[in-house]
Parts: sequence; C-alpha cells; structure tokens
Amino acid sequence: MLRSSALFLVLASFIFMTSQKKTRVIFFGDSITQAGAGPGGYIRKMDSLLVVKGLDAQYELVGAGISGNKVYDLYLRMDSDVVMKNPDVVFIYIGVNDVWHKATSGTGTDPDKFERFYTRIIRTLQSKNIKVILCTPAVIGERNDYTNQQDGDLNFYSNVIRRLATNYNCKLVDLRTIFHDYNAKNNPQNVDRGILTTDRVHLNPAGNLMVAESMLNALIQK
Amino acid sequence: MLRSSALFLVLASFIFMTSQKKTRVIFFGDSITQAGAGPGGYIRKMDSLLVVKGLDAQYELVGAGISGNKVYDLYLRMDSDVVMKNPDVVFIYIGVNDVWHKATSGTGTDPDKFERFYTRIIRTLQSKNIKVILCTPAVIGERNDYTNQQDGDLNFYSNVIRRLATNYNCKLVDLRTIFHDYNAKNNPQNVDRGILTTDRVHLNPAGNLMVAESMLNALIQK
Amino acid sequence: MLRSSALFLVLASFIFMTSQKKTRVIFFGDSITQAGAGPGGYIRKMDSLLVVKGLDAQYELVGAGISGNKVYDLYLRMDSDVVMKNPDVVFIYIGVNDVWHKATSGTGTDPDKFERFYTRIIRTLQSKNIKVILCTPAVIGERNDYTNQQDGDLNFYSNVIRRLATNYNCKLVDLRTIFHDYNAKNNPQNVDRGILTTDRVHLNPAGNLMVAESMLNALIQK
Amino acid sequence: MLRSSALFLVLASFIFMTSQKKTRVIFFGDSITQAGAGPGGYIRKMDSLLVVKGLDAQYELVGAGISGNKVYDLYLRMDSDVVMKNPDVVFIYIGVNDVWHKATSGTGTDPDKFERFYTRIIRTLQSKNIKVILCTPAVIGERNDYTNQQDGDLNFYSNVIRRLATNYNCKLVDLRTIFHDYNAKNNPQNVDRGILTTDRVHLNPAGNLMVAESMLNALIQK
Repeated sequence: MLRSSALFLVLASFIFMTSQKKTRVIFFGDSITQAGAGPGGYIRKMDSLLVVKGLDAQYELVGAGISGNKVYDLYLRMDSDVVMKNPDVVFIYIGVNDVWHKATSGTGTDPDKFERFYTRIIRTLQSKNIKVILCTPAVIGERNDYTNQQDGDLNFYSNVIRRLATNYNCKLVDLRTIFHDYNAKNNPQNVDRGILTTDRVHLNPAGNLMVAESMLNALIQK
Repeated sequence: MLRSSALFLVLASFIFMTSQKKTRVIFFGDSITQAGAGPGGYIRKMDSLLVVKGLDAQYELVGAGISGNKVYDLYLRMDSDVVMKNPDVVFIYIGVNDVWHKATSGTGTDPDKFERFYTRIIRTLQSKNIKVILCTPAVIGERNDYTNQQDGDLNFYSNVIRRLATNYNCKLVDLRTIFHDYNAKNNPQNVDRGILTTDRVHLNPAGNLMVAESMLNALIQK
Repeated sequence: MLRSSALFLVLASFIFMTSQKKTRVIFFGDSITQAGAGPGGYIRKMDSLLVVKGLDAQYELVGAGISGNKVYDLYLRMDSDVVMKNPDVVFIYIGVNDVWHKATSGTGTDPDKFERFYTRIIRTLQSKNIKVILCTPAVIGERNDYTNQQDGDLNFYSNVIRRLATNYNCKLVDLRTIFHDYNAKNNPQNVDRGILTTDRVHLNPAGNLMVAESMLNALIQK
Repeated sequence: MLRSSALFLVLASFIFMTSQKKTRVIFFGDSITQAGAGPGGYIRKMDSLLVVKGLDAQYELVGAGISGNKVYDLYLRMDSDVVMKNPDVVFIYIGVNDVWHKATSGTGTDPDKFERFYTRIIRTLQSKNIKVILCTPAVIGERNDYTNQQDGDLNFYSNVIRRLATNYNCKLVDLRTIFHDYNAKNNPQNVDRGILTTDRVHLNPAGNLMVAESMLNALIQK
C-alpha cells in the first residue's frame, strides 16, 4: 500500500511538473537568510519538508540573503535580485541589522525610514503581482524576560512590520512572537543563546527548523 | 481635638529636635534628582510628606544630583559630595544615563563596569556606617509593552541593581517596577510620555509624587 | 547719474523678465538649508547678492531644507520636493547628519549607502535635465587641527562627494575645504564654534555669507 | 678594541646584576599590549633590543595588557595588576578603546572622564614613587589624510594625554605622532591597514618594532 501510494505521488508529481510552472519563492533578507540557503539552513529544510509533503514539484525556493543587510540594502537590490528573477512569492525577512547596527556601528535605521523604505519594497513587488509575505525579526538575544539590550527596539520595529502586513494585506510570519513563546517555555535558565540560535542572532538547527515550519505554513496555507 | 493634637505634635517635634540630631539623607543621582531638589521636585515633596506625618524634625533631606551623571560621575564625586557631608542615609538613584548615553553620545556604561563602580560606591559608603538605599532607573519612555528603545537595557541594569541590593543588604526602591505597574494600569493609549514624565525621562508632578512616596516609605519603615 | 543707472537696471530687468523665464534654483538639504531660507539665511543673502549684481531677475531661489535630513530623506522626497517643482539647477547640500547621527542616535549612514543613494539622486535629477551642483558638508566643530570628533568621517564623506562630482560631471562647492581654510586663518584660539557657526554646525551671519558667496559663484560662473 | 669594549660591557653588566635589583617595568594597557607580551610583540622586541644594547640585566619587562580595556578598566585593576607588583616604571598605553567603543558598542569614554580617571591612575602610581610614562593611542586606521573615522577623536584624546604628561611631569611616547609621520612617508596609496598594523589597530611586525624602539628610547634615556 505504502509503495503504491509513493508511486502515485511520484507519478502525480511528474504530471504536475510537466503541466505547470513551479511557484518561485524568493527569500529576501540578511545573513540569517544567507545561511538559510546553505547546508542545514531554513530554506533547505523547507525543501525537505516540501518533499515530505509531496509538494516539492510545486515550489522552487531561492535564497537572496546577504550578510549585514538592512532595509536600505534590500531596497537598493530589489530590482536586480528579486524583480528581475520573476518570483511568484517573496518572503521579506529583515530588521535585525536595522536595530543592531545602532549599537555596533552607529548606522542603524530610523524607524520612520524603516517603515518608508519597507513600504516602497512592498508596493513595488505587489505592483508586479508578486505575493509578499512579511516576517518580524526573531531575536537579538534569547533571554525571555525582555532583558536583551535590543528587545525594546525589536518589539517596536516588529510592530511596524505587523502594521504594514495589515495595511498592505500581506501574510505575516511573526517570528518575534514565535521565538519569544518558544523561549518562554524552553529556556528555563534564561540564557541568551543556544536555544534557537548559536550566537544570540543566527539560527541553530532547532531555530532553522522553527523558521522553516513557520514559513512553510504561511506559504502553503490558503 | 485636632488643634490639641497639632499642638502636641509641635511640642513633640520641638523636644525631639532639641534632644537629637536629625537624620541626614542625601539623594545621590542625575538630572532627575537635580530637579528633585527644586520646586515641585520629589525631594521637596518628601519634605512636605514628612511635615504631614509630623516627622520633619527627624530628617534633613539634601539633594546631590547633577545632570548627565552616570555611575562613573557618582564615583568620582562620592567623597566630596557625599562622604564629607556626613550623611546617615544615602539614596543612590542612577542608571538612566548609563543606558541612554549609549544611543545619544556613544558613551554609555558597560554592564560590568556599571556593577563594579556601583559596588565600590556601596562599599565605601557602608564602610563609613552610612545606610545605603538603592533605586532602579524608572523609565526612558513610558510605553507599557516593552517597545521603548532602551527597555531591554533598563531591565538588565535594574536586575544588576536588584542583585547588588541583595548582596550588600540594602533596601531597594524598585522604581522600574513601580513605574511599569502604574503605566500598565494608567496608560491605556500606550503613550511614551505624559503619565509620570514630561519627556519620557524627567518627572512630572505625578512622577515626582510617586518617587517621593516610594522613597519615603523606604526611609521611614523599619 | 546713480539714479539713471538704477533706472536703467530696473528697465533692463523688466525687459529681461518679460523676455525670459527665470532660472529656478532649488537648495536641497537639511536644517542648515532650512535656516538658509529664513531671515539672514544663506539663500536670502544670495537673493541680496543677486540684486547687487543686477542678476535678480534671472534667478529664482527656492529653499528645500528639512531639519535632521540625511541622504535617505532627500532620496525619499526627491520627487515631491524637487522634480515636481521643475527646477533648472539643484544644489545638494547634505552629509552632516549622515555622519553626526552615528554618535547622537546610532542612525548615521553607512559610507556605501551614502554613495549609492546620493548617486541615485544625481542620476534621477540629471535624467530630467536638471543641473546638479554638489556641496561638501562644512563642519561639525570648528577647531582647525582635526580634533573635532567627526573630522575623520566628514573628510571621508567629503571625498565621496568630490568623487561623485567628478564622476557625474557636477560643479562642486567644497564647503569643507572653504571652511577649514577660513578657520586655519581666523580661529587662532582654536575654538569649536563662533567663527562661522553658532553651535559647531549651524551658520552664524559670517557663515551664511560665506556659503552664499561660494554657492553664488558656482551658480553664475560659466 | 670592539672586543675589549664588549668584554667590558659583559663584565659591567655582571657586576651591575649582582650589585643591584633590576628595574621592573610594567606595560599597562589593552589588547595591543596583551599581544605585545606575546611572541613577536613589542615587549618581547624590547627584550631583544635590551640584549643588543647589553642592558638586559638592568630591566625586567612585564606585560599587563587586557583586551578591550579602557581607562576605567585600568583604574579598576591598578592596585592588583600594577601597584602590588612593585614596579619602578609603568608605561600607560590606553585610549584606543575609549574612542573606538563609542562606535562599536556605545560605551566609549567621555573626554572629561578619560582625563579624570587617567589623572587618578597617574597620581596613585606617582604617590608610590613609581615613574609613569604616558603613550598616545597610535591609530584606528592608517590613512594619512585624516579620513579615518576616529581620527578627530584620537587627536583630541591624544591632546589630553599630552597635557597630562606636561602637568604631571611624565615622559611621553607620542605614538600618535610617530605613526602619523611614518604613514605620511610610507603609505603612498593611503591604505587603512598593512603599514604598521594588521587590521587598522593591532600591530604588525613593523608596528611592534616601532613601538618597541620608541618606548625603549623613553625608558633608557636620562
């Protein structure tokens, strides 16, 4: 029975592939997304989850993350790295560096500019009939009692993104809330890394899986 | 009846004054305390509350706040501005600029240095048999959902102060918690100023009263 | 004689005005330019200098400065505040806040983003056949021995602007050099303000005159 | 002749060693000094230079550098790491992080605090009859036209140190000037690293040798 089901899926996938173009999905972000496209990264885990669900023939997942990027950088390379590649769906996953660079190089992003450049990206992509899905920045530090230095700002910028999702009718993957809820339950010693990240920011295997599952859910649900 | 009670208090105070030295209390801090010593400030309100309670003959309240001060500044002027004035009690109310100056001039205080210089102040004063009472920094922004930029850091530095209070057996006036709880109930529109502050940091009349009552309680309770 | 000359000028100007559209010049910048459009500001001084030279009928000077602006802000309002007003010439005078905000709010501009957004502004304006004149940021502090905190960065960002002027064939008003040379001669006590600025950044009457003369020279010379 | 002079020196050194305690020299600083005590570091090069000069029997060189240190850190560990080790001479080589941390973590040192804590260190050491030699911070970036981001601040803080050297009658090793002069001649392409540093801050072999020679000169000259 299992074998015949599997055979059916393979055949169905084959028919599907020949009959229809894949949905091209671009992940537009920073170093988290750059690593997400590498071995063990969240995009690669999404590939595997699509196989598990027998949906791999329907989606093509493409990483477009560059280390250090802020919303300004996404805006500057939006045409070359996203629009010209004709995606059907774009996940925007940005904000960590916009907040973090305030402390580490003095070149973070003012909240008003964050909102305005982010808005321009959304409107440009939507004008090309690209479906845009927004993500809130997960964490800079995993302590669960709001004692990480950037917690106030991450909460504030996440609220901006939530408002944009509502205003522009975009799905939202609220990683900030998802990570916070997970840490509230699974980080009893209130450590700042090692639960979902390796270094307070970048994802460990559990973090990559959590992002993969959260994004996949947003991608395939109607 | 009221008149005779009042007469009794006056007489009692007089006798008290002639029989015993006042408890000298120094408030050691930044611009919030500098304003606290001025008209309408929290120290002046404490004076009035002491009169109301008939305890004004027992306490002499002295402001020692200087605008822009961080823990380093308190350390540098500890001898001249506190020890040499022979206080019985010192309220240390510092930390806002240690956090805030990270963003406004790049010269905030590292957490480890905050703890170490703060510790040196406590130990020096205690070695002179001065009673030391610690205060946590109240707010930089009054939004009550941890979306003020410095909330993470203020929470973190407040934890340092709470730990020092425990380790050195000091009373604690936990203004951070007191202000947060008040705003949780009395700031339904989640504004960043105007509830207990005029400008996100400095106290309005309600804020000065709240600090006065909280500190007075710590001062007179046994 | 004077009267008849004056009469002649008035008549000549009248004829000129009726025979030809004025050259519209927009000054695109930050608070220095916002003040420049007010009483005593550099744009108003340019108006007066044009009258002195009998050229006032040929030029219309329009301020477009907004306090706190960085290159990002100019980019965002370029269409509404410049292009839609159909100027013939645009002075771009930006960079102080791009450097300064690193220290005062952690939201300065990365050098690469400064260059890339600046380039987009130049190219957009030039594509509309608008003549673009670039200015280097004058000073943040007037000490003349490179001991002002932002001197290194101002020099670096000025080099970026000089290179852009060369690459895009724009006239350059090199205020950074002009102010430095003036201070080298006229600031023997090496004070940080009061020579050409009131507060290390914003122009005093002498500073406004110097900018007015420098820009006018660039505007009218062939 | 040369041989007999050499013999004389050896004998003289031997007599010197047996008749008198070595001069103990402590190098008190940050990561540059921490590396300076390691293989190829400037302190080890000074050891070799002392051997070359036949003075190695007279001096004992001890590193006391810790990565990331600012003047505050030196102050906090002055007693344990310097005074208690009974040095005869202390080189204070600090200031890079006091300036740099403004940009990289928002916790640089205010100029007034830099001067006041530095002064306390000098006075404490001098009160123990320790000879104190001051050094200016060399570079954060080796471009020789004052376009390195921190040049203004490094120049300013170096002026503070020069003034302290005068006021407290200390020898000065003016590394800021020495490095600048060297780069003016030997850095024709105006690169920001690779001439005397590996990474804009930490010393390469040529930089270690230059510091070694400069410090040794200050140490042995009368």
